[in-house]
Amino acid sequence: MSHDNPEIGEFLDLLGNNTRRRILESLTNEPKYFIQLSKEIGVSQQAVLKHLFLLENFGLIESFKAKSNLAAPDRKYFQLNRSVYLSIGITGNSMEIKMENIKGPNKIRSKNNMAIESKEVSIKKDKEITDILKNTKHKLELLAKRMQELEDEKIHLLKEKQQILEITHQVIRESLKEDLARRILYSNLISREITDIEELSETLNTREKEIKIVVKSLEDRFSVDLI
Amino acid sequence: MSHDNPEIGEFLDLLGNNTRRRILESLTNEPKYFIQLSKEIGVSQQAVLKHLFLLENFGLIESFKAKSNLAAPDRKYFQLNRSVYLSIGITGNSMEIKMENIKGPNKIRSKNNMAIESKEVSIKKDKEITDILKNTKHKLELLAKRMQELEDEKIHLLKEKQQILEITHQVIRESLKEDLARRILYSNLISREITDIEELSETLNTREKEIKIVVKSLEDRFSVDLI
Repeated sequence: MSHDNPEIGEFLDLLGNNTRRRILESLTNEPKYFIQLSKEIGVSQQAVLKHLFLLENFGLIESFKAKSNLAAPDRKYFQLNRSVYLSIGITGNSMEIKMENIKGPNKIRSKNNMAIESKEVSIKKDKEITDILKNTKHKLELLAKRMQELEDEKIHLLKEKQQILEITHQVIRESLKEDLARRILYSNLISREITDIEELSETLNTREKEIKIVVKSLEDRFSVDLI
Repeated sequence: MSHDNPEIGEFLDLLGNNTRRRILESLTNEPKYFIQLSKEIGVSQQAVLKHLFLLENFGLIESFKAKSNLAAPDRKYFQLNRSVYLSIGITGNSMEIKMENIKGPNKIRSKNNMAIESKEVSIKKDKEITDILKNTKHKLELLAKRMQELEDEKIHLLKEKQQILEITHQVIRESLKEDLARRILYSNLISREITDIEELSETLNTREKEIKIVVKSLEDRFSVDLI
C-alpha cells in the first residue's frame, strides 16, 4: 500500500518546505551555486546550504564543480538530478498516492558549459532563440494544455469513484455488523483479489486464522469468491 | 507561482507523515472514533489525537457525534471531509505542482447511520452486496485502469517537455551572458506573456526599470514581442 513507501513520505516532507520548493524551481532554469540561490531567493546562505544538503541527500539535485570565469577557485554548482511524478487524490471515500520515477534519456550534462562566456554570439544562435521564443513556446503551451486536460479527466474520474464508493460503503456499513467483515470487503473492493491471506493479515492487523473464517462466511453468504 | 501557495506546502507537510497517511487511509473506509484508529494503526491514543487535530485543522477530516450502541456516552467520529487533487512533476528542467479542490455533489452524511445495528439484515441488502462485489468492483477496476492511462500519458508529456526545455535552456545559456536576460527568457517560456512587469519584477527580485531595459534589448535582438 502507498502508505508503506517511506520514500513517498520523505518526498512529500521535502516539498512541504517553501524554501526548498523555491530552490527547486530556481534550479529548473539552470545550474546555480549556493550564493546565487541565496541572493535570488532572499534566504541566508546557511539556510540554503542546509536545504541543498537535504535535497541532494534525497537525490533530487546533484552538485558538480565548474571553472569560474574569474581567477577565483572552482565553484560548486547544483542542478536537478531526478525526474519524479507524484499524484495524490483524496475524496470522501478514497485516497491514492502514486509516485513514479520518470526514466528518460540521460540529461545533456551542463558541466562543460558553465564556463563558456563567448563574447561573440553567433547569428545562428540568435535565430535559434527567435525560433524558441516563437515556436518552442507554442509547443510548450500545447503540452501544458494537454496535461491540463489529463488532470481534468483524472479529477472527473475521481469524482465518479467517490460516488460509487459512497453508495458501496453505505450498503456494506448497513449490512455487516462485524468490523473485520467490513474491513475485508473494503480491502477487496480496492484491490484485485484477496490472494494473499498473509498480507491481509498484516494490513488488517488480525490473525490469519480469524481472517480465513470471516472470508469463508462472507463467501457463503454473498455467493462470491473472495480468494 | 505554485511555490507561493502556502496551502500546498501545508498539505504536503501534512501528508509527509506516515501515521497521518495511515489515518486518512483508514478513514476512507468509514468514519471512526480515535480509540478505534489508535488500535487499528498501532499508535498511541495521544499521538492519534494530535494527528487528528492537525488533519481537522486543515479541513481534510471533520468530526461529528454519534450515539454509541451500548449505554455508553456519545462517541466523536472522524471522517474525510475534503476532496483534493494534487500532482507534482519534477524533471531535470521543470517543476510543476498543482493542487485543485475537487468540488462534487455533497457527500451522503453518515451521521445517522452509525448507530444502526439491525440484527436482521434484509435479503435485498445481501443481493446488493453480491452485486457490489461482482459489478461495482469491476467498474472500479475500469476506473483505475483509465486513471493509470492518464498518469502514463502525463509522464510521457513530462518527458517530452523535459527534452524540449533541455535543448532550449542550453541554447539560451550559451547565447546570453547576462543573468537577468536569461531569467526573463526562462520566465517567458513557461508563462504565456510577460504582461505584468510588476509581477515579473517581484518574481525576479529586480527593479521594474531594469527589467524594462533588458526586455527591450531582447525584443530588438531577437525580433520578438515579449510584452
